[in-house]
Amino acid sequence: MMFGFWGIAMEKWKRSARLVDMTQQLLNEPYRLIPLTSFAKRYHAAKSSISEDLTIIQDVLHAEESGQLETMAGASGGVRYMPHIGPRETKQILANLCERLTNAERILPGGFLFMSDLLGDPILLHHLGRIWARIFGRSKIDAIVTVETKGIPLAYAAAFHLRKPVVIVRYDTTVTEGSVVTVNTVSGSSGRMKQLSLARRSLEKGSRVLVVDDYMKAGGTARGIIELLREFEAEVVGVGVMVDSVVPEKLVDQYVSLTTVTEVDEKEKRINVDFGNLFDQGAYKQ
Amino acid sequence: MMFGFWGIAMEKWKRSARLVDMTQQLLNEPYRLIPLTSFAKRYHAAKSSISEDLTIIQDVLHAEESGQLETMAGASGGVRYMPHIGPRETKQILANLCERLTNAERILPGGFLFMSDLLGDPILLHHLGRIWARIFGRSKIDAIVTVETKGIPLAYAAAFHLRKPVVIVRYDTTVTEGSVVTVNTVSGSSGRMKQLSLARRSLEKGSRVLVVDDYMKAGGTARGIIELLREFEAEVVGVGVMVDSVVPEKLVDQYVSLTTVTEVDEKEKRINVDFGNLFDQGAYKQ
Repeated sequence: MMFGFWGIAMEKWKRSARLVDMTQQLLNEPYRLIPLTSFAKRYHAAKSSISEDLTIIQDVLHAEESGQLETMAGASGGVRYMPHIGPRETKQILANLCERLTNAERILPGGFLFMSDLLGDPILLHHLGRIWARIFGRSKIDAIVTVETKGIPLAYAAAFHLRKPVVIVRYDTTVTEGSVVTVNTVSGSSGRMKQLSLARRSLEKGSRVLVVDDYMKAGGTARGIIELLREFEAEVVGVGVMVDSVVPEKLVDQYVSLTTVTEVDEKEKRINVDFGNLFDQGAYKQ
Repeated sequence: MMFGFWGIAMEKWKRSARLVDMTQQLLNEPYRLIPLTSFAKRYHAAKSSISEDLTIIQDVLHAEESGQLETMAGASGGVRYMPHIGPRETKQILANLCERLTNAERILPGGFLFMSDLLGDPILLHHLGRIWARIFGRSKIDAIVTVETKGIPLAYAAAFHLRKPVVIVRYDTTVTEGSVVTVNTVSGSSGRMKQLSLARRSLEKGSRVLVVDDYMKAGGTARGIIELLREFEAEVVGVGVMVDSVVPEKLVDQYVSLTTVTEVDEKEKRINVDFGNLFDQGAYKQ
């Protein structure tokens, strides 16, 4: 919120500079309600001029399908920028992700897929965060829950766009967490036992949470997280994964996947990947 | 890069809409070089008009200390938005972080500090990422390296702003990493042995890396990471931590801290926190 030399050098902003500055302010702080009076004061301009400018900005955002301005009337009213991602851009991003996933060099012994490079790509994650925000943005969410290690970047990408905190479930606990709640769970695909722990003070009782993870096979880990969250009386409003794979039966009823691995042929070195089930969700239906 | 209905509805963009759209395009893709010809084509405008508009945008960014436009001449030239954070805003963000850190309820048995809430705050992390980008943005960096679990969000925040991939060192290895390189290291403060592992294919030999972590006490973990990176013939161009604490001797020579815990009094329930050493660094000196 710095005033810079414009405030000193010119009593009245030029309209063109004002438009650039308003666009910048709105885009830099998505979801934040900015009172119209603060704009009017900042630019020494009439509220009617500010409204005209906002109409121009809204028209451009709308045309680009990149977001919209929400105006709230009244004393506590103002305007805020709501980012948005359209179906066309979503498909472009996911088509690119599918293509990267089908690289046969990803196949590891046992048919596992190497995905650390994708989960290490901050630009890809940023775009996936925008998609999560579209899918879950209308639900009331208090926190994004994920499990270490690979789910973390995806959870942050979602959290940044949903403006909610991230809470990390851990496989082992450390002294820097304080007291923790632990559940034992069985991995659905390997049948191995795992402990999942969450610091007592990291999640308020009764929170509404979105669970995000990188990969779901049978869904054993997701089911374990849901069990653990029950200890916090949390309500799971959604489960989202970047990649799921086709298995006879999932241990989790409802979840959203961005991509689906339909086939991994270790011998033939072939991977097939499709869009996940996200386009069947409300947010992407008309 | 969608053309929306503007491209259909109007042959020539109105100047005001063009300014809003250009600002949006530049801000949405920091560091990306956009050819002037693509703007000229998009808006059916002369290059001279585009240049005028860019001057207006540059003036506003400069006045706000929020970034600048870099124009490159020549056939492969264009313009790109370089985000920026000024010393004043940096101090506001870190003063707020210091205040949050001094909350006595953070003190855990053994004098450890609970910080998961701070590391779970995507807005704070976003701003810390902008600060890392200012400090390390002029160094040639190929990857940001961190260690699970708490360093991961900070590494992604830096990576998003530096536009570089994240590589995660792990304490235990899983089958989904492929073959790994492991070193044994001794924690400087606890004296305990730890294993640090990194997937062979996650970092190219000879990479220039920035190491980012949440907390540094004696620096044993950071030293271990540096040792591990030697196996990859990597060059460590910087080490950055969100919080360090005052100890007689650090095991790492050079590092940048955003904040410094100067005192934790478990009995008196008192924490003192100051700005770290970042303002002694080149990027924040005149």
